[in-house]
Amino acid sequence: MFRGERLAARIASLGRIGARPGGGVCRLALSDSEKQGRDWLVAEMEALGLRIAVDPIGNIFGTRAPRPGTDAQAPHVMIGSHIDTVATGGLYDGALGVVAGLEVIAALNDGGTETDLPVTLAAFSNEEGARFAPDMLGSLVYAGGLPLAEALDIVSIDGARFGDELARIGYAGHGRGPARVAAYLELHVEQGPILEDEGVQIGVVEGVQGISWTEVVLKGQSSHAGTTPLRLRADAGFGAGIIAAGLRDLIGAVGPSQLGTVGAITLSPNLVNVVAEEARLTVDLRNPDNTGLKAAEAGLADLVARAAARANVRATTRSLARFEPVDFAPDLVAMVEEQAAGMGFSHRRMFSGAGHDAQMIARIAPAAMVFVPSKGGISHNVREFTTAEDCQRGGALLHALVRRLSLRN
Amino acid sequence: MFRGERLAARIASLGRIGARPGGGVCRLALSDSEKQGRDWLVAEMEALGLRIAVDPIGNIFGTRAPRPGTDAQAPHVMIGSHIDTVATGGLYDGALGVVAGLEVIAALNDGGTETDLPVTLAAFSNEEGARFAPDMLGSLVYAGGLPLAEALDIVSIDGARFGDELARIGYAGHGRGPARVAAYLELHVEQGPILEDEGVQIGVVEGVQGISWTEVVLKGQSSHAGTTPLRLRADAGFGAGIIAAGLRDLIGAVGPSQLGTVGAITLSPNLVNVVAEEARLTVDLRNPDNTGLKAAEAGLADLVARAAARANVRATTRSLARFEPVDFAPDLVAMVEEQAAGMGFSHRRMFSGAGHDAQMIARIAPAAMVFVPSKGGISHNVREFTTAEDCQRGGALLHALVRRLSLRN
Repeated sequence: MFRGERLAARIASLGRIGARPGGGVCRLALSDSEKQGRDWLVAEMEALGLRIAVDPIGNIFGTRAPRPGTDAQAPHVMIGSHIDTVATGGLYDGALGVVAGLEVIAALNDGGTETDLPVTLAAFSNEEGARFAPDMLGSLVYAGGLPLAEALDIVSIDGARFGDELARIGYAGHGRGPARVAAYLELHVEQGPILEDEGVQIGVVEGVQGISWTEVVLKGQSSHAGTTPLRLRADAGFGAGIIAAGLRDLIGAVGPSQLGTVGAITLSPNLVNVVAEEARLTVDLRNPDNTGLKAAEAGLADLVARAAARANVRATTRSLARFEPVDFAPDLVAMVEEQAAGMGFSHRRMFSGAGHDAQMIARIAPAAMVFVPSKGGISHNVREFTTAEDCQRGGALLHALVRRLSLRN
Repeated sequence: MFRGERLAARIASLGRIGARPGGGVCRLALSDSEKQGRDWLVAEMEALGLRIAVDPIGNIFGTRAPRPGTDAQAPHVMIGSHIDTVATGGLYDGALGVVAGLEVIAALNDGGTETDLPVTLAAFSNEEGARFAPDMLGSLVYAGGLPLAEALDIVSIDGARFGDELARIGYAGHGRGPARVAAYLELHVEQGPILEDEGVQIGVVEGVQGISWTEVVLKGQSSHAGTTPLRLRADAGFGAGIIAAGLRDLIGAVGPSQLGTVGAITLSPNLVNVVAEEARLTVDLRNPDNTGLKAAEAGLADLVARAAARANVRATTRSLARFEPVDFAPDLVAMVEEQAAGMGFSHRRMFSGAGHDAQMIARIAPAAMVFVPSKGGISHNVREFTTAEDCQRGGALLHALVRRLSLRN
């Protein structure tokens, strides 16, 4: 049986590692505090009898052996997430999936369950990307999406090399993760407000939205706000306003699953009485459907052109990032949904708006995710919070799914 | 006769004082370079036989005596401007009016003209306000708009007290400016693009626009750009866009003489993937007519309210500055217009978009201004430029007007 009170205690234990004075945690990837988190995790895994393997990118795999006599080549049922955080992180993002995994193993141990497939709990390196870019690095390398040597040479925002930092904290391993994965499941906090807003307990995650980030630069002409008639202006601030205001209409036209955000606007010279010479703004577009995302991108190009013409400025755009949507394995998603229903949890299908290790593992194995509500939708923030009851529901669901996947019948 | 070649040489001479390596000048008020400019001016005035008076706020007055026997209480015909500049100033803003004044005096001397009224050339302290706020300080104190003691206590952006700096450079005078002013005329570069754009030689300035500066702060809720549905957002960046884009329509509705500018927008946290929690933006509204300016202010309040409602944010506004429009003396404006026409100069009536000493003197005497074209409308910039021909036209017009005003018939 899955024991929620032990889960809550373990979340608190991990949360004390790298705790910030005002609340929340700072466990940036490969930092001293994240090393302490790794040491804690390995000790917990060992106490549960797991066989530990640390691979060369620092991913930690703890495997619970199947019933004696099982084929050594049998694929693993894998669960996991990450324990690194952003600089002002909360106690749940990543940590919940790993700590719940410990409880799943503990519950299997408590029941003396002999599984037909090995069960592996994974903690992937550098999921956040807050210190080393790109994010989801450990799962990307494990899934074969980036050569190891290239990953080890990545330099952090503080100038340190990934490989050097990994060796420094003692996690440049020589082991390897499972060669074959039967299924991968990741429990995570939603990091958004939908479940809370709708009063739904479980999010059945069908996939991860596609992301398109664009930087728009508008070049006009700096001029005096008091002496320059409107018809003689080349006003980059006006152009930026047209884009920031017009984006909402554009994405509304694409469809209800399209998101769009102008999160950053920087004007130069940014003075009250000077018409802005330059505006730099970012546009974040997301859609679970690639066709819709492309329509939004085309709409943005058109909006930028119209804004430039109306404000009499020159516009250039540059793609900062582009990730196609990821669809999780339909059968596995259906199993998550059926299990949630069977356990009496209110649930809804949804797409993840943020990136997760599961989308990297989806390249090599059937993958799916379970979301639990985030209070106020707040994440990457010390105020991030998910109730003990919600954590327990997610963990119990994960436990039931691991049992179903690892037992042949 | 007014001699344009001497005017050009004198502009160049003053332009060498405080010259910047890359062009332009830096003669911040009461700085060492501005003291050199003052010394140069006083020497030029003395060479022309003017009687010098420096008042306690540092304004320099050089007076050419009228014909012998004139009443000592006769009002003065005053011309002038300023020689301080912004940190990256050009050679014409302020300097042209003062240097052209020297040439007007020289032309009167050359012709042996005996005037019925004394003619005074004034260089007012701290017109720019770049080092000490407020701007137009010397003319404001002279016109009785600010007590001397209060002005002397103003502290600069570098921490120095106005009175102390004035004493340091030797211009804390004990003299006084003319007790009565018959008329004040100021020749100045337009600092805007209208005259150049329309191919007009002389701007007959009817007054100075009213100015209303407002800071708008929008408070929303920071949230994840990938996980937060639009209906659950409180997006300060969206609200800022609505205001920056909508202002253009608003001012168009007020009328053709209304100007409006969003020159500064600052978002927090200003990140590509985070819905902005806060936006701070400035709105600069100008209109020569106070009724129109008030209509624009009311329209802005309405626009801010609509933006806040649509973006689901709280809005607060704060007035940063509010100056009512200034109308110059209609008879004097008409005389400027008539004289320009009589000299065969193309001309148009216009309002000044920027502040000038003339608007302070207008409190105590009939005042008017003459504008000459600014290349590209550029000012407060080392690239500021007005052709020698345009400077000469403006100076010759000033000379003719001073003759008319200072000779009884």
